[in-house]
Amino acid sequence: MSALKGACIIAQSGGPTSVINASAYGAISASLASDCITKVYGAAHGIRGVLDDRLYVMDEEDPAELARLKNTPSSALGSCRYKLKDPDVDDSDYRRILEVFRKYDVRYFFYNGGNDSMDTCNKISKFMLKNGYECRVMGIPKTIDNDLFGTDHCPGYGSAAKYVATSTMEVYHDATVYDYGMVTILEIMGRHAGWLAAASAIAAQHGMGPDLIYLPEIPFDCETFFADVEKVYKATGKCIVAISEGIAAADGKLMVEKFAEGTDVARDSFGHAQLFGVGTTLANMVKARLGCKTRCVEFSLAQRCAAHLASQTDVDEAFLAGQKAVEYAVAGVTDKMVGFRCSRENGYSCEIELLDLTVVANTEKKIPREWINEAGNGLKQAYIDYALPLIAGEARPEFENGVPRFAKLKKILAE
Amino acid sequence: MSALKGACIIAQSGGPTSVINASAYGAISASLASDCITKVYGAAHGIRGVLDDRLYVMDEEDPAELARLKNTPSSALGSCRYKLKDPDVDDSDYRRILEVFRKYDVRYFFYNGGNDSMDTCNKISKFMLKNGYECRVMGIPKTIDNDLFGTDHCPGYGSAAKYVATSTMEVYHDATVYDYGMVTILEIMGRHAGWLAAASAIAAQHGMGPDLIYLPEIPFDCETFFADVEKVYKATGKCIVAISEGIAAADGKLMVEKFAEGTDVARDSFGHAQLFGVGTTLANMVKARLGCKTRCVEFSLAQRCAAHLASQTDVDEAFLAGQKAVEYAVAGVTDKMVGFRCSRENGYSCEIELLDLTVVANTEKKIPREWINEAGNGLKQAYIDYALPLIAGEARPEFENGVPRFAKLKKILAE
Repeated sequence: MSALKGACIIAQSGGPTSVINASAYGAISASLASDCITKVYGAAHGIRGVLDDRLYVMDEEDPAELARLKNTPSSALGSCRYKLKDPDVDDSDYRRILEVFRKYDVRYFFYNGGNDSMDTCNKISKFMLKNGYECRVMGIPKTIDNDLFGTDHCPGYGSAAKYVATSTMEVYHDATVYDYGMVTILEIMGRHAGWLAAASAIAAQHGMGPDLIYLPEIPFDCETFFADVEKVYKATGKCIVAISEGIAAADGKLMVEKFAEGTDVARDSFGHAQLFGVGTTLANMVKARLGCKTRCVEFSLAQRCAAHLASQTDVDEAFLAGQKAVEYAVAGVTDKMVGFRCSRENGYSCEIELLDLTVVANTEKKIPREWINEAGNGLKQAYIDYALPLIAGEARPEFENGVPRFAKLKKILAE
Repeated sequence: MSALKGACIIAQSGGPTSVINASAYGAISASLASDCITKVYGAAHGIRGVLDDRLYVMDEEDPAELARLKNTPSSALGSCRYKLKDPDVDDSDYRRILEVFRKYDVRYFFYNGGNDSMDTCNKISKFMLKNGYECRVMGIPKTIDNDLFGTDHCPGYGSAAKYVATSTMEVYHDATVYDYGMVTILEIMGRHAGWLAAASAIAAQHGMGPDLIYLPEIPFDCETFFADVEKVYKATGKCIVAISEGIAAADGKLMVEKFAEGTDVARDSFGHAQLFGVGTTLANMVKARLGCKTRCVEFSLAQRCAAHLASQTDVDEAFLAGQKAVEYAVAGVTDKMVGFRCSRENGYSCEIELLDLTVVANTEKKIPREWINEAGNGLKQAYIDYALPLIAGEARPEFENGVPRFAKLKKILAE
């Protein structure tokens, strides 16, 4: 394989994580160091930045600020939710991308994102091949949801899981402090897979976690849920419940949608509809059923952006994924996603594995049924053994004057 | 003053903070080290533990576990919301307390809490004096709300403020990542005073915070709020707003109550009323008004229990307050709360100041009007100068296997 010389574009897509910038930094620093890569561009807001010809020149950035990306949450280059059309139906976006690639002599394209982004990556790769434009396209995975197929786990999950486990332990202390009964519901992110809610089981292992955990993998039944909660509450005077936001009924419909169907939607004093989450709804239902105090705590955005509590393992692996994507591409690899193959026997080890973009794109990975208890309301040791290495080690940004010193990029646009 | 020998009781009350256990540890370790204090009891669930004769023997605890209290959130001894009656109306609780004090020869009582707890402390102190029972009673302040009168600031505030400032910076990164417009509302604790919401101004100083901040100190007007938000949104395509949960209208009524008045309360599919917060309500209103995407992030319980992100200054001062309460009591002081007198000229210094319980109890301290900008939607430098020393330094528990190693007490009941 002869050396391919040219510029590269690095882009970030989808929902933020605490470590997607660590992957970007891995790719940017490896690209800056490569003899084959002549110029390093960061696309503003993912693939939209390519389409709009808005590219930041990474070569112009202060290396110390770039290094701070390792501990800066969210996507420093900006993200998008734009989905490319099927090129067989309308290939105008792809032709525009090719035009911009030609303009800047882009020969390397690195896309850092989740399921949809790998699909985008795949389509661009196939289009370039079909049109005879030599370009190496690599996917770098990220998602707090951990639902990407083919890889042991996904950068972003370890930090989000560490946040969920730690915050659950802390909220446990708060929720059990009074001498009166209380049911506390923790609403945790995860639309289709329960990986994040499952992380609350790590807190439970230390006796500081939920009594019950409900995941999208198990059909949710209200009566079973009430019976479960009542049993724990009657026995102990308190009950802590972790639920995925994506819990769904046996017919596959999200519980939050089911509840909305049966609801006279609340209106504020201006007549506008009020929306509320599945955790709050269940907390109100439990209150009415059991006559006890209830509370819903939504972990909300902090799950995916609390870089001050990131997993060092996750930061290191996210960086590695970005770095290796560049190194493999320079060595001739294209049309692949960088994945992880891990072993947990005799300690934890993690190796890079290249996966076909076609296989990865749009396939979801769920928690194996055998990792969930019989009753469907808790996790087994197999999950704990899987997750513990991923949350190991504490990464955090430097702090200045009491708050994090996050990266500040100049973001100089290419002319 | 002759040496007073006898047992002591340490009790915790009110809502948890990240550092109330640091104060408890200060009091417990100083008591264990004192020649005058013969036995160290921790009351289960505050004053209720005294009334119910449920006292844990601190002398029996493992010193290493006690030391971990410094970084363990919430109240390790348990808390309560029990309010003692006016002794002039019904003194049965006080007589019961005296009975338990006599039973265990309790000569020192340390109560760690907020406004109400200082009131309890004051009443117990006066009752003992009136009944000729020699007992030294000291209040140790705590509250994330920072609304205790007479002290520069209150243990618990620095850590909560550090959490709010840091999380605001992180959520800022998340909330500004997309290429479409968005109004993000951060709902921050604080029923009567805006100290905690004000901490978001520290994030704004770094260009990573709210555009607008609304506090209970300034009467809230919906039309002014919409105009403020619209102005920022039209100019920048995004707007981040921090609000105190306790924002109130000019007539003093909480906005959350105002909204509920004008609302057809939502009902779930079982017919139960749904409740939602002021942040969510405002987010829905803005969405309807401006037609833009909106989002409410409630910082929720983590504000008062995220010990993994505590302020080292706060932990140290909380410990000092507990320790000094014991040392002063042993030296003959009684009927006082330990407060702080601070200087911010030529660096930060903090000295202990003893305050009369009668003065402290039930008086609320608000943010001075001159620290808030003219428009009433932001903070001035005077607040930043006040707050920065309080959030300085990073305290955190040791981590084991990826999660915090919090204190585990044996809690052996006295017979």
